Amino acid sequence: MTGQDELQTWEAVERIRQLSPIVHNITNYVVMNNTANALLALGASPVMAHAEEEVADMVGIASSLVINIGTLSRDWIKAMGKAAERAVERGLPIVLDPVGAGATPYRTATARDLASAFRPAIIRGNASEIMAVCGEQARTRGVDSGAAGQDALAAAQTLFETWGCTVCISGETDYIIGKTRFQVGNGHPMMTRVTGLGCTASALCGAFAAVTPDPAQAAAQAMVVMGVAGEMAAELAEGPGSLQVRFLDALYRMTRDDLARRIRTGA
Amino acid sequence: MTGQDELQTWEAVERIRQLSPIVHNITNYVVMNNTANALLALGASPVMAHAEEEVADMVGIASSLVINIGTLSRDWIKAMGKAAERAVERGLPIVLDPVGAGATPYRTATARDLASAFRPAIIRGNASEIMAVCGEQARTRGVDSGAAGQDALAAAQTLFETWGCTVCISGETDYIIGKTRFQVGNGHPMMTRVTGLGCTASALCGAFAAVTPDPAQAAAQAMVVMGVAGEMAAELAEGPGSLQVRFLDALYRMTRDDLARRIRTGA
Amino acid sequence: MTGQDELQTWEAVERIRQLSPIVHNITNYVVMNNTANALLALGASPVMAHAEEEVADMVGIASSLVINIGTLSRDWIKAMGKAAERAVERGLPIVLDPVGAGATPYRTATARDLASAFRPAIIRGNASEIMAVCGEQARTRGVDSGAAGQDALAAAQTLFETWGCTVCISGETDYIIGKTRFQVGNGHPMMTRVTGLGCTASALCGAFAAVTPDPAQAAAQAMVVMGVAGEMAAELAEGPGSLQVRFLDALYRMTRDDLARRIRTGA
Repeated sequence: MTGQDELQTWEAVERIRQLSPIVHNITNYVVMNNTANALLALGASPVMAHAEEEVADMVGIASSLVINIGTLSRDWIKAMGKAAERAVERGLPIVLDPVGAGATPYRTATARDLASAFRPAIIRGNASEIMAVCGEQARTRGVDSGAAGQDALAAAQTLFETWGCTVCISGETDYIIGKTRFQVGNGHPMMTRVTGLGCTASALCGAFAAVTPDPAQAAAQAMVVMGVAGEMAAELAEGPGSLQVRFLDALYRMTRDDLARRIRTGA
Repeated sequence: MTGQDELQTWEAVERIRQLSPIVHNITNYVVMNNTANALLALGASPVMAHAEEEVADMVGIASSLVINIGTLSRDWIKAMGKAAERAVERGLPIVLDPVGAGATPYRTATARDLASAFRPAIIRGNASEIMAVCGEQARTRGVDSGAAGQDALAAAQTLFETWGCTVCISGETDYIIGKTRFQVGNGHPMMTRVTGLGCTASALCGAFAAVTPDPAQAAAQAMVVMGVAGEMAAELAEGPGSLQVRFLDALYRMTRDDLARRIRTGA
Repeated sequence: MTGQDELQTWEAVERIRQLSPIVHNITNYVVMNNTANALLALGASPVMAHAEEEVADMVGIASSLVINIGTLSRDWIKAMGKAAERAVERGLPIVLDPVGAGATPYRTATARDLASAFRPAIIRGNASEIMAVCGEQARTRGVDSGAAGQDALAAAQTLFETWGCTVCISGETDYIIGKTRFQVGNGHPMMTRVTGLGCTASALCGAFAAVTPDPAQAAAQAMVVMGVAGEMAAELAEGPGSLQVRFLDALYRMTRDDLARRIRTGA
């Protein structure tokens, strides 16, 4: 059983709050606001920019890049490529969120192309999205979360071996497959009734990857902090509306003690 | 006086919560997040996608399609057409929200083109938007809600007779004009001070149309649930900020009893 | 020391609540929802439209135009130009928010081009953005707020003398440099942890400019109301999530007395 000590999550939270790393997000229209607010509440500095003309410059001042394909279009894919190229040049960690991969061929192809071309440090998705990125069939129902069975874990392992990407499969238990492996049991079922919390998880992966060199450790830290904030919020929430509000409050207020008491991780 | 029994609203809510139908939204940037959250809180599965390359595929896995012209542009109009074509092929209900029709010729023309080409099952708008779709002059002030006078009711009747569209005119009283007719008196004045609750109403029409075959009944169910959730929220809200949060909580928590006690409908 | 009386802020709030002026926003994806909600909570009528085909028509029914470059792209810049042209023709006040100017050459150039071509009544930004619009170097960290030193004040003075633009430099103290000068000390530090409150400030400048002829006075009124609402919200908030919700409630509920007790201004 790994825990707070091994993951050093609290130290990473403190580094984010002190350094306020710039996280450049090219993400979908639905969640941009939530993503920016979650990063701000955590202590990071979100930047959103998607124009081909400026993404490389923006990556130039960022500490990590988060690419989320939730609401794709041609111009945005071009910009994602330009931004990722620059991030690779600069050695910045890239996080890829393959939202809805498997739901349409366009999304599946885009996610696979981005993954194979730029080898993101972290790919975070639900089980069926991860399988789709790996080229396997799964019955995706839109952007729903599914359970991570053996198939998804095998797909994650393949992605790690082929492209060197650490994979985080989100679900009731989150599985992080990379150089090291972690399981995170934090979170609350009501979180699935708030749009974009998966996208927020990917954005937090970007923030932690900016201060934690090992992508697997960074992803696990992000999932722990997500889950703990979600649990803190759910205790006081009367539904998904107030959960979302209290989730941001919890990210902002979280103490070392909140984390230590709630963290549920394994290897 | 029709009521809970005739409208079978609660049974429809339960079907949505059980089946979690996928509602594909091509909507405006302002409200995407709210729309997705309202559908999730109700129990449906929202999907947002607007790329020409994938909208037909996404409609292929959806149970209904909601088109909202709130922040138009050329590429989005093309995608709306492709998505609607596929929805017609599949026999899926389409909901059209002609946001701001009447405010600019571009919006009016787009709304009319979409309505005439694809004959949506439901068109939901305020009185002046409905009149604009019908080709009549009304003094639209942006996206404000106006009162539904005889002119708007006549326009709705014309749209139903010409294109077979059920029309829902939102306002203090909502009028549903179709094969059957309903009036819904639920709601709260503070709801007009939250952006996008009209758009949310259209999205809920999409969710109910996915489980209720008669479009007029589906629209009336949606307006009842909107209004009841708004009333529940307004009782606890201290302004439009908390109203929006509590509205989502109310959609999530609503019981058969909440509905039965508050429903105010007529024919 | 100037105060409530000189600024006539309350009278301006009442005019907005009575007249509900249409404020046309061409703004970024991240904040559209917040911006619209803040304008609605204040009592104004927000309109969002960005298509080249309709922006001039929309400006035709608006009382002011707010241009925000937070998530730029080619088509949007074209639309901003068309809208601004029409606003100049109609003599409407334009507010420019040069989000992230200084962070990339693309943003800096776009902000400068818009400012020089259309001479906005008000330019509102943080110190480094204002310096970038003026053509001076500043160390911008993305869209962070910085302190307004002598350099920023000099840049604001230059912008006023060169293009006649009233400049509002936001920060712990807000500086308004125009025909008249104001300092506003209202606000709360937690506001910097909510995305888009700067953009909201610009939108409120648009609302006040619609009812107050002197741009410097309008900008000061907007900053006072922003800051007072933020303080009211912060007293009850448990973090940035609830701050955002309570900020909208405070805008909606603000009384003459709330304003009179809290206003902190100087010249």
